[in-house]
Amino acid sequence: MEQLLTLDDAERMAEAALPPDAWSYIAGGAGDERTLRWNRDAFSQYRLRPRVLVDVSSVETETTVLGSSVSMPVLVAPMAFQQIAHEEGELATARGAAAAGTLMCVSTVATATPGQIAAAAPEGQHWLQIYVFRDRQVSDGVIEQALEAGYSALVLTADLPVYGIRHREARLGFEAPEHAVPAIVEARSRGGEAGGHHSLGLLESGLEWTYVTELVGRWGVPVLVKGLVTSEDAMLACEHGAAGIVVSNHGGRQLDGAIASLDALPEVVDAVGERAEVYLDGGVRRGADVVMALALGAKAVLVGRPALYGLAINGSKGVAQVLEILREETENALALLGCRSPAEVTRAHVARAT
Amino acid sequence: MEQLLTLDDAERMAEAALPPDAWSYIAGGAGDERTLRWNRDAFSQYRLRPRVLVDVSSVETETTVLGSSVSMPVLVAPMAFQQIAHEEGELATARGAAAAGTLMCVSTVATATPGQIAAAAPEGQHWLQIYVFRDRQVSDGVIEQALEAGYSALVLTADLPVYGIRHREARLGFEAPEHAVPAIVEARSRGGEAGGHHSLGLLESGLEWTYVTELVGRWGVPVLVKGLVTSEDAMLACEHGAAGIVVSNHGGRQLDGAIASLDALPEVVDAVGERAEVYLDGGVRRGADVVMALALGAKAVLVGRPALYGLAINGSKGVAQVLEILREETENALALLGCRSPAEVTRAHVARAT
Amino acid sequence: MEQLLTLDDAERMAEAALPPDAWSYIAGGAGDERTLRWNRDAFSQYRLRPRVLVDVSSVETETTVLGSSVSMPVLVAPMAFQQIAHEEGELATARGAAAAGTLMCVSTVATATPGQIAAAAPEGQHWLQIYVFRDRQVSDGVIEQALEAGYSALVLTADLPVYGIRHREARLGFEAPEHAVPAIVEARSRGGEAGGHHSLGLLESGLEWTYVTELVGRWGVPVLVKGLVTSEDAMLACEHGAAGIVVSNHGGRQLDGAIASLDALPEVVDAVGERAEVYLDGGVRRGADVVMALALGAKAVLVGRPALYGLAINGSKGVAQVLEILREETENALALLGCRSPAEVTRAHVARAT
Amino acid sequence: MEQLLTLDDAERMAEAALPPDAWSYIAGGAGDERTLRWNRDAFSQYRLRPRVLVDVSSVETETTVLGSSVSMPVLVAPMAFQQIAHEEGELATARGAAAAGTLMCVSTVATATPGQIAAAAPEGQHWLQIYVFRDRQVSDGVIEQALEAGYSALVLTADLPVYGIRHREARLGFEAPEHAVPAIVEARSRGGEAGGHHSLGLLESGLEWTYVTELVGRWGVPVLVKGLVTSEDAMLACEHGAAGIVVSNHGGRQLDGAIASLDALPEVVDAVGERAEVYLDGGVRRGADVVMALALGAKAVLVGRPALYGLAINGSKGVAQVLEILREETENALALLGCRSPAEVTRAHVARAT
Repeated sequence: MEQLLTLDDAERMAEAALPPDAWSYIAGGAGDERTLRWNRDAFSQYRLRPRVLVDVSSVETETTVLGSSVSMPVLVAPMAFQQIAHEEGELATARGAAAAGTLMCVSTVATATPGQIAAAAPEGQHWLQIYVFRDRQVSDGVIEQALEAGYSALVLTADLPVYGIRHREARLGFEAPEHAVPAIVEARSRGGEAGGHHSLGLLESGLEWTYVTELVGRWGVPVLVKGLVTSEDAMLACEHGAAGIVVSNHGGRQLDGAIASLDALPEVVDAVGERAEVYLDGGVRRGADVVMALALGAKAVLVGRPALYGLAINGSKGVAQVLEILREETENALALLGCRSPAEVTRAHVARAT
Repeated sequence: MEQLLTLDDAERMAEAALPPDAWSYIAGGAGDERTLRWNRDAFSQYRLRPRVLVDVSSVETETTVLGSSVSMPVLVAPMAFQQIAHEEGELATARGAAAAGTLMCVSTVATATPGQIAAAAPEGQHWLQIYVFRDRQVSDGVIEQALEAGYSALVLTADLPVYGIRHREARLGFEAPEHAVPAIVEARSRGGEAGGHHSLGLLESGLEWTYVTELVGRWGVPVLVKGLVTSEDAMLACEHGAAGIVVSNHGGRQLDGAIASLDALPEVVDAVGERAEVYLDGGVRRGADVVMALALGAKAVLVGRPALYGLAINGSKGVAQVLEILREETENALALLGCRSPAEVTRAHVARAT
Repeated sequence: MEQLLTLDDAERMAEAALPPDAWSYIAGGAGDERTLRWNRDAFSQYRLRPRVLVDVSSVETETTVLGSSVSMPVLVAPMAFQQIAHEEGELATARGAAAAGTLMCVSTVATATPGQIAAAAPEGQHWLQIYVFRDRQVSDGVIEQALEAGYSALVLTADLPVYGIRHREARLGFEAPEHAVPAIVEARSRGGEAGGHHSLGLLESGLEWTYVTELVGRWGVPVLVKGLVTSEDAMLACEHGAAGIVVSNHGGRQLDGAIASLDALPEVVDAVGERAEVYLDGGVRRGADVVMALALGAKAVLVGRPALYGLAINGSKGVAQVLEILREETENALALLGCRSPAEVTRAHVARAT
Repeated sequence: MEQLLTLDDAERMAEAALPPDAWSYIAGGAGDERTLRWNRDAFSQYRLRPRVLVDVSSVETETTVLGSSVSMPVLVAPMAFQQIAHEEGELATARGAAAAGTLMCVSTVATATPGQIAAAAPEGQHWLQIYVFRDRQVSDGVIEQALEAGYSALVLTADLPVYGIRHREARLGFEAPEHAVPAIVEARSRGGEAGGHHSLGLLESGLEWTYVTELVGRWGVPVLVKGLVTSEDAMLACEHGAAGIVVSNHGGRQLDGAIASLDALPEVVDAVGERAEVYLDGGVRRGADVVMALALGAKAVLVGRPALYGLAINGSKGVAQVLEILREETENALALLGCRSPAEVTRAHVARAT
């Protein structure tokens, strides 16, 4: 049997375990998948600069995100429709993340309600990712359920005003399990009609920055904006009250040709300064990637597909396994970098390849 | 059956549909085909910088070219001998372009007269590409026919004073269907002799910038110069009255080693300023490419081979299909870029890869 | 039979000669083996600038290291467990290095005692590489034995506070022959317990720069620090009394993503100035590589795996053969560079590729 | 039968026509053949900037080298032992070069005397390449014969003080046909002993710049120095009276890792100014390469291996054929660049790829 030692192992094992159309949805990107590849390749454009003869007999990977403690600077990114990877879907992911001691960002289009997911892992921490339905009452309902279930922040996805052009899905005829998504079922029951070929047509494509202000003012929890890759938008996010920014291009699934997340990170970090926490999403597969992102100013990273790989392989245990691999690698990278904690990683620990 | 979702699909399907020698003429480039590849590769040297939380509930791809409205910032480039791709040749291309709502630039060495082509798509818009015969009366005759048929601009090809060295054609013995080209038939009937191995030997290799002045002064329609890749020549074009410039290296078919069109675009745009409209020709295969060119200052792009792919696959419907794919991709890219129209794309939407 | 003309030949022959698990330990690197590859690739980022019409009828490869004469600016790097490559292990390596007229740096975790190794090659020169056991008496014992046997310097490995993540070893289940390592046997007999899955868990992970000061003050021989890749640490090494620095990332076996040795060399050389000798370890496979390192300021280079390749192929003779290939290539490269000795190589003999 | 349309065709055909050991000598380079590849790859790092609407109805490839007229800015580089490619060896090459209207640089270690070669192509132009034997009377004898036969310049090879390390030759056991080389036969008959494994051991490795002065003062013909790749040596060449410089790394056959010829060209051109003519040798396979070299300041280029390919395929006719391909490509490239002659090519016709 294949050994699960790395996230690349997990990818191969997950591909073998899943039907092709489900895999096409999970693994694919937009267009020619250039941004998808760049997200990963960007890490090879930087070089770590380890420091030596530092006492690293005790290294901790724990850090805080928006003030809450997590076991590592690695969170689970929001991903839709997780039942396509495993019958227990988000419930298993939540258990896996909790077992690994880190936070899960739950998608609006999860195949379970926010409450069910929280209940599956009562010791876990959760943020709610928000897609905004044209029928605002649907979105508001999901938010209310999540806050009631103890979710501690809202993560507004900003880079899906329309759906990206994803050929892998189209070629294999992937169809989202909409019937299993409470939010979509609710939207349809209220008469919502998809504008396009699938449920994402129910979503609002006219959102503006004022919506961030609205979210910040209304719900009493921190709001993060996810899907920024420019300093201009990072400044707008701060001006509109965001407590955090997730630098992301939606895993290369939206605008093919967009800049890689890691390449955008420094300009966002510089623009934000101390006004908000900056997170990186996209391309992280190794502990060395995690510390690279920290060195370039990220507070933590989010991993999406790798968590689904674990889910597909072995449910909640697979998720925990993948996260634990990343945690161990991060611990090892910190020690070899001469850092006793994520907070000790600085921009001097990384250099651009020449 | 293969799915036609992308222009790369169209390329594969066209290659399968055409005899090898016709394909060699359509697909090939000069020399080692470096410039041919660079034209395409250049797009991967830039990164799109999408902006988010802009209301893109209504995105329009319509734009104007030399003041006329077209459905998208994508025109059909001039290409010779289109009967080699499909028996209906330029007539079908004209119908396809008109169906897609955009303009076709008709070649002097078309396998139909300008009038026939216009008549095939009376609702279409047409520009006339000009090759200058040594016997000027032949060229003048073609221009007169075109203007009579309502063509609205003249596009002087400047980068074919002699024919490029194209080995694919030579190896397979491709021969142009000269008998089907009214302009060539006319030139030969008037005693014209080819200087080289084929009909392009009938053309003038001694043209100078004064010819642009002559065209501008004589025919009463805007004149564009096609085939420039330097700021120096762009300034000369403006000084000689050109209303537009098509940055192009003839699809990599003339001087192998020449700079890629996209790489030349910024210097041309900077040199021209507001004096003329600048177009890009070469390597465009995706909506993301279209917006990249717009970001670097192009008013619109021209696509050549992709239109022929569509023509080869399915005549006028194939042409329209290819153009519609590009239009949809452009609309999607605009929305994801945070732009509601081509005019909203700025240089800040693109960055050079580092 | 395959010809042994280059170190790449030796690599192929050694791989064929060794069992897969031993090979995994010798050849493998950490993580995705990016740093392992970068160590080698870095040499292709520089260009040699040979000078001509210099009288090179007499070229010498001899140089000095810490004042002692060696036959070439190439030393044998410290490597653990050499019996896995050949039953005679370090004894044969010592004989091969001595035969080639150069110095061997002996590992603390050798499969023979320092005294046995020195006795095997009484005419040879030896430095002792130091891993520090948590039980300091074990380390001190090894040092005492070495100094008694005439070893002339101590080389403190600074980049292994914890063990790198090496998947090749893990996948094949490589186990170090701990029973054959006197230092480990001693540590265990004194009740030492490995903190991790193998003997390196016996080592100290809390070392700081003061330990360098301690070594310098206590043993009366020069101390080198091995495993630096930053100017910051190079300055600290000088400040703490190091007589030499080995720029190294442990052959790509520790922190994957770390900068290549050669890329780090210039900043270390600039930081150190005349205060210490700087050595390069990592990626050297050719005489041209040796002179490149000299041009960038190295006093000499260390080769690790290539010596093991020779050992695996043909014991001490194989080691000598590999070293002699490097010496001849270095002599050839010096002559073609217009240099009569290693000392004549300057930074003007190399340029960064553009 | 394969078509001979390009120099790459000629390469494939020659490889098929020759025994492997002869091919190893002709095609191989030193070490890992990095410099051999870089010589070719360097041309892809530049971009041509064609100018349009220039009257190129009459384009001439003729130029002058050291004041003499040749049919194109392409000369035949000196190459040893040409009988290994074809039984008529240098005699056929001389005829082919003469037929193509260009100059041949004859090697000291030709398999015919300078007089025989000149007699084979009385209408041809010849320069003599010089290797200096330790027994100077041998070299002087060759020079005397050449000048008597009308050779018009001496080309001192400066980059072979010792022989490069060429593994292809070694692996296949290539042996030079020394018995067929009059200069070597003479040297041996005078008691010369090779210092190394073959005849090149008869050569002097102690030459210095004063030898250039000596050549210039003694023989009354212009002297070129071949094998420079640095501005420093270019200035020394000028100071010692060289009329010309051939920027070359001996076709990648001497110091592997040395800078590519084309990359070294600009610094040499800048250092030399108007004091001498600068030539480029290495990697030219296309007319586009020729004009690129002209744009970077070369007066002409030399081609070595391609001439041998022609020789191997079809004797003197093959040489002429290869040269005529290059001439036609150069003419085409000049026209498409907007230049009516080699003299019109300027540095503005080329740009570094970004």
